[in-house]
Amino acid sequence: MRDGTGTRLAEREVGTTTDFMTQEQRAELEALRTQRYDTKRATVPALEDLLYTPVQVLDHGFVRVVDYMGDDGAIVQAARVSYGRGTRRTSDDRGLIRYLMRNRHTTPFEMCEIKLHVKLPIFVARQWIRHRTANVNEYSARYSILDREFYIPEAEVIRAQSSTNRQGRGEQLSPDEAARVQELLREDAERAYSHYEELLNESPAGEAGDEGQSGLARELARTNLSLNFYTQWYWKIDLHNLLHFLSLRADEHAQYEIRVYADAILERVVKLWVPLAYEAFCDYRMNGGNLSAGALSVVRSLVKGRRSEADELRKASGISAREWRELMETLELDG
Amino acid sequence: MRDGTGTRLAEREVGTTTDFMTQEQRAELEALRTQRYDTKRATVPALEDLLYTPVQVLDHGFVRVVDYMGDDGAIVQAARVSYGRGTRRTSDDRGLIRYLMRNRHTTPFEMCEIKLHVKLPIFVARQWIRHRTANVNEYSARYSILDREFYIPEAEVIRAQSSTNRQGRGEQLSPDEAARVQELLREDAERAYSHYEELLNESPAGEAGDEGQSGLARELARTNLSLNFYTQWYWKIDLHNLLHFLSLRADEHAQYEIRVYADAILERVVKLWVPLAYEAFCDYRMNGGNLSAGALSVVRSLVKGRRSEADELRKASGISAREWRELMETLELDG
Amino acid sequence: MRDGTGTRLAEREVGTTTDFMTQEQRAELEALRTQRYDTKRATVPALEDLLYTPVQVLDHGFVRVVDYMGDDGAIVQAARVSYGRGTRRTSDDRGLIRYLMRNRHTTPFEMCEIKLHVKLPIFVARQWIRHRTANVNEYSARYSILDREFYIPEAEVIRAQSSTNRQGRGEQLSPDEAARVQELLREDAERAYSHYEELLNESPAGEAGDEGQSGLARELARTNLSLNFYTQWYWKIDLHNLLHFLSLRADEHAQYEIRVYADAILERVVKLWVPLAYEAFCDYRMNGGNLSAGALSVVRSLVKGRRSEADELRKASGISAREWRELMETLELDG
Amino acid sequence: MRDGTGTRLAEREVGTTTDFMTQEQRAELEALRTQRYDTKRATVPALEDLLYTPVQVLDHGFVRVVDYMGDDGAIVQAARVSYGRGTRRTSDDRGLIRYLMRNRHTTPFEMCEIKLHVKLPIFVARQWIRHRTANVNEYSARYSILDREFYIPEAEVIRAQSSTNRQGRGEQLSPDEAARVQELLREDAERAYSHYEELLNESPAGEAGDEGQSGLARELARTNLSLNFYTQWYWKIDLHNLLHFLSLRADEHAQYEIRVYADAILERVVKLWVPLAYEAFCDYRMNGGNLSAGALSVVRSLVKGRRSEADELRKASGISAREWRELMETLELDG
Repeated sequence: MRDGTGTRLAEREVGTTTDFMTQEQRAELEALRTQRYDTKRATVPALEDLLYTPVQVLDHGFVRVVDYMGDDGAIVQAARVSYGRGTRRTSDDRGLIRYLMRNRHTTPFEMCEIKLHVKLPIFVARQWIRHRTANVNEYSARYSILDREFYIPEAEVIRAQSSTNRQGRGEQLSPDEAARVQELLREDAERAYSHYEELLNESPAGEAGDEGQSGLARELARTNLSLNFYTQWYWKIDLHNLLHFLSLRADEHAQYEIRVYADAILERVVKLWVPLAYEAFCDYRMNGGNLSAGALSVVRSLVKGRRSEADELRKASGISAREWRELMETLELDG
Repeated sequence: MRDGTGTRLAEREVGTTTDFMTQEQRAELEALRTQRYDTKRATVPALEDLLYTPVQVLDHGFVRVVDYMGDDGAIVQAARVSYGRGTRRTSDDRGLIRYLMRNRHTTPFEMCEIKLHVKLPIFVARQWIRHRTANVNEYSARYSILDREFYIPEAEVIRAQSSTNRQGRGEQLSPDEAARVQELLREDAERAYSHYEELLNESPAGEAGDEGQSGLARELARTNLSLNFYTQWYWKIDLHNLLHFLSLRADEHAQYEIRVYADAILERVVKLWVPLAYEAFCDYRMNGGNLSAGALSVVRSLVKGRRSEADELRKASGISAREWRELMETLELDG
Repeated sequence: MRDGTGTRLAEREVGTTTDFMTQEQRAELEALRTQRYDTKRATVPALEDLLYTPVQVLDHGFVRVVDYMGDDGAIVQAARVSYGRGTRRTSDDRGLIRYLMRNRHTTPFEMCEIKLHVKLPIFVARQWIRHRTANVNEYSARYSILDREFYIPEAEVIRAQSSTNRQGRGEQLSPDEAARVQELLREDAERAYSHYEELLNESPAGEAGDEGQSGLARELARTNLSLNFYTQWYWKIDLHNLLHFLSLRADEHAQYEIRVYADAILERVVKLWVPLAYEAFCDYRMNGGNLSAGALSVVRSLVKGRRSEADELRKASGISAREWRELMETLELDG
Repeated sequence: MRDGTGTRLAEREVGTTTDFMTQEQRAELEALRTQRYDTKRATVPALEDLLYTPVQVLDHGFVRVVDYMGDDGAIVQAARVSYGRGTRRTSDDRGLIRYLMRNRHTTPFEMCEIKLHVKLPIFVARQWIRHRTANVNEYSARYSILDREFYIPEAEVIRAQSSTNRQGRGEQLSPDEAARVQELLREDAERAYSHYEELLNESPAGEAGDEGQSGLARELARTNLSLNFYTQWYWKIDLHNLLHFLSLRADEHAQYEIRVYADAILERVVKLWVPLAYEAFCDYRMNGGNLSAGALSVVRSLVKGRRSEADELRKASGISAREWRELMETLELDG
């Protein structure tokens, strides 16, 4: 259920260019990467390794984990309202987490929380912020000056309006057309930023401009920048709502530019943080399917009389006994 | 996908007893039922008929519509961000609403809102309130005195703990056992209420008790009442979140006593209010099915080679061309 | 507690230009303005008059009421969880609403709901959307083509960065400087839009462009537009959360361009819709004050020994007996 | 601004009885108290000491910290959207946190999160759950059997209905009356629990009851228990919403039985976790005051002509220069 190109987007090589942070920012993070504290809290070593290490997304963007609370065990612990860790054996935890995911018992997943620092183009931020059940602090362009950083799509993702999906992309443009798109976007963004600086009469580093001229208020000057400029924010969300966000934004119908962020979060962060919840989520949400009443009746007709074959498929399926029973009932193959 | 008894719960006869409201309350509603105002707002005549007419649920409970905003057209209007009604033809509206429901474009459904007055046992209220995206004003037992009204289950729903589902009911108890349960619940509730009155030293009507004795603060006296006593509240919610509530609480896994409220809201209110959204909700949520990645692969194996039969089923299915295409892709029957 | 210019922003003359809607949009609204329905619901005649009549804000923006639920009486009704209207006399309602507002009993205010259609610059939309407890459907620039409409500030609000408030505006720019700002913003926006059209290879009306050339996907082409372009949305919110939004966005620290929307909603909509709640909100929130523990102790020292003068002030103050008692306690003037 | 008895509730001696947990539960927590992990995350040593150590509240209840995310520095870090810790000097952090609290810039406080395990009477849980912006997993009485644990108030808090506040307590009852209240509550709770066990035909430990008799479903049997029985839950909330909860529930108008939980969280947990935010919260919320427009005008009249005295008070007040300026403006003492 992913994009038509046949590859999962997150499998694309993550760039090695390093122009998405300044030397100063790098040094700040480097210093933090060496700190060590003692804690009694649930800790995920695989995710600790990722703390203070940004994952690059698009040309100047990134996602980095700032903090987290809980792990797979915390889901189990909350589901059982237990005094201790709530855990018995890993296999029990896996079964319980899959049961909770399958039956949409969502509250235990809310007991894990993650805080990300994200740098992203403004038009992506506008889609992202529609997910309301999260905490956000965005870099303020009323208070501070934005950097000369804007998003220019790579040629392979420069595509025409889709003819079948009114809100998606279709065929790739020719190399010449793509180059023209990039040139045009770049020129307009460069000019907009130069005029932004002129309006401010001040540089981001705080160097003053012409003495004889007033600087326009930042909150007004920024209105000249285009939607492909980068902003950044701290974004904190619980695991249930994060998975809901990912189910919509890592979906093939999402715009490519937000999908790469969702894929980075899913494959580079969630998979390390809560591997059992990740697996259940992929099985039941990302790669599962929703059938309407009508669709179900069609399927039931098609599988009619195939009970014996079903039994053979059972062994290979890896489906739990309980889920199998539910599936046979759904398919009306009980008889 | 409903309860094992084979009948939809909402089809049970709605009681004709009238002891769920006092004469005074009846008179207040009666007076309002005759009022008429002029409005330019979207209006649903079928729901107007229900305003100020409570639908009885359980022995002393009810659901009644106090106010509503929007109709099926308001969903369409918001989806199109239109200046006018947004509507073209009813068939277009139906198609768009089904598309939105199928693809979980949930925000247009949030544009309809409903306000209910509900009278319900406290243990039901405790499950109900877990749905957080709603506005609630509950009758205050710190401020007022509760009435002598408590829920006693009818014999047919007095059942043993389920042996297969750790949080459900199984077999019906014998008539003798059921009578004993009712008697025991009734006696304890009657005694608890009498002691509540004694503690308050005051009756609900405000009649003073013994002169020589102080009345205990209401907020403390109420702690002696059991969870089957009735409370009531105003509950306001948007249509998307209402449908989510109903998908969980009108489900066969929900406790019977909350399910009858959900059924009453679904079949007696939502069906009248937004008939197109109701139909789509039943098809895609209530009567549809969720298949995991593993379940889907089993189904694909079972239907393999049945493309020609599928084509025949198509005519009878009533599924739209677009949904059919999606189903064939899901089943890998495109070839 | 309003802006330093001494005038409430909403008192500024509302423009009479009519270029914020097309003739077609006007006709759609005109048709709806004549419709009449019968309803038993709470109805506010003063607000009915405003339905389908947009209030202009900024150069091309507007706010218009699409629908509403409840009135002042609905607040009272919910606070009392009453069977009827909950109302006794208007003076009782006023007292109760002021009590609820003063003591932050917020849930009864959540029982009123309003739905607005708003047209606003994208940078304003970005501040607005941070208020999460609302329902939103925004015009999709993935699906549709935006119009050539962008915000250019009038000379009087073109101001320099404030020297005392790091996120506000200070002195007005000179007429020459202001003209230069307007020219620069306009030129860049015009160019960005022309390039947007070139990239799309299609006009908003759907006229095709050059035959030999592909049109870029809308979701990408829009990234060239600047933050002063207009978007629009349906926005639905309950009264409590609306008042919270207004307390922050009609405040003098809010950016001028969102403040004019907040002022329009407060003075042109809320005041008509729920006059008692409006009055209480102005007294207790907009024009009231929050004193810290330290500030309170200073005030107490300053008023010490002025009890007799306080009694004289009492008559003129119009403060209720209960609030007066609370004030004397706060000021430690009880003795 | 606390309860009329003159003592802060949290200063009452915390009981040393240990009957709020079983030996088994104690052992589980003891084992976890010794665990140590390495982390790069923000860590608060004073709060680490409290992990896995329940704070007793009421006769059988407790609050214990299960996990936390962030510290005072995380508030600063998010407000600055910084790459590193965001912190400069502690005095800067203090100033910024006070500025954010004073001006209701609430989002940075949302960047800290805490997870508590709480054991509390059902009637307290019913008030608590009304705060919707939190994550909750409650012990399920459909799935499990509740223990024989119920709340009996101590004599000193057994009070009559208040004659001035319709939803509060007034005078203490006489020792005899109080003893009668306790006796009556205890007898009814004991009987209700015995009948609960009889209905279940099973003990909490899983011992079967009479062979010849069916056990009633747990979800029905529990309806016989009274509102003073204990339940428990995991409750997770961000710091902003926690402080909002505390401002309402640690207030003197809150019912005593929830106030002791709020006080325990405020004084035993928040104070250790985020000492700077705690201090600002006490100054600006708990011990500050809200004045209406009318009240402000009275205060302004009373302080008129006292500018010179104000200057003297300034030195002793400890108010920042900025806040002082704002106060003089509020009091109209600038001239």
